Amino acid sequence: MAQITDLNVEAEINQLKALIRDVPDFPKPGIVFKDITPLLGTPWAFQKVIDYMGNRYVGSGVEVVVGIESRGFILASALAYKLGAGLAIIRKPGKLPYKTVSASYTLEYGEDSIEIHEDAVRRGTKVVLVDDVLATGGTMSAAIDLVEKLGGDIVGVDFLIELTFLGGREKITSRGYPVFSLIKF
Amino acid sequence: MAQITDLNVEAEINQLKALIRDVPDFPKPGIVFKDITPLLGTPWAFQKVIDYMGNRYVGSGVEVVVGIESRGFILASALAYKLGAGLAIIRKPGKLPYKTVSASYTLEYGEDSIEIHEDAVRRGTKVVLVDDVLATGGTMSAAIDLVEKLGGDIVGVDFLIELTFLGGREKITSRGYPVFSLIKF
Repeated sequence: MAQITDLNVEAEINQLKALIRDVPDFPKPGIVFKDITPLLGTPWAFQKVIDYMGNRYVGSGVEVVVGIESRGFILASALAYKLGAGLAIIRKPGKLPYKTVSASYTLEYGEDSIEIHEDAVRRGTKVVLVDDVLATGGTMSAAIDLVEKLGGDIVGVDFLIELTFLGGREKITSRGYPVFSLIKF
Repeated sequence: MAQITDLNVEAEINQLKALIRDVPDFPKPGIVFKDITPLLGTPWAFQKVIDYMGNRYVGSGVEVVVGIESRGFILASALAYKLGAGLAIIRKPGKLPYKTVSASYTLEYGEDSIEIHEDAVRRGTKVVLVDDVLATGGTMSAAIDLVEKLGGDIVGVDFLIELTFLGGREKITSRGYPVFSLIKF
């Protein structure tokens, strides 16, 4: 799990970054949304993203990749397939049909929560958590709560994009988990 | 693209089928929900699902796999990775940030619609459409409308599960597209 410092790699990551589109005023005025669909839709780029995120875990015995609704599913699923792992999903309340455990997190105004099936991760299972964007880290922190409740052994917390100016990384590393992000803004 | 008739294959598909859990009265009383999360969460089973769905297209030049929100993302993403293709996503209204085209479909009571980015599929691109469950075929039929509007060349329409008693297959084959489903109920 070396850090990505190689110059060719850096050039390639910049090519991937160029495929992320800024959409102003989405979902609301003043917000610039990072649209990853051009990146996902470009075959070589999508393959590279999954390879960069997954190669770090080849041979590490990851058994389950956990994806957060719904763009997190995209990365987690391809990653699980690459690693020969299973996939577990974390969803908004009321979406999962079976018995769940849930965790809350704070929003700008108010609270929200997410859920996971109580049998989605077995105690002691090696788990990687994945989402598309690390912003404040609130959602991922709640996702970590869920996997901890189920007794999963979290070996990594990975994002495609990190919005470094929001400082979400600290919220996760302070709990003792390694954070990886492929593309930083 | 041979049909799956081999006995060993049939036995394996039955093993996969056994990992789908019936959840009664979800999302509402009287409905028995087919919960695929135990299947997704079992490493060998998840790998098999993607291999069975994907092996049919190896070498066929599929350039984009289109997944429908949100469980469709799971299958489409791993499939795209396996095939060296890109991924395009179809979402509920208001979720996609960029310029979209949309299509409507009829529900039991009323109407719903789905959207795709106008640049998600280029004219003439070889496309496979994927969703988790084929029920009445209404959502997939609207998804086909979207890909047709963008000029995509649809080479297959694939599902993990087909609820054969609802007759959705006919709605798609009557438009001239081949339908594949791995597991039938």
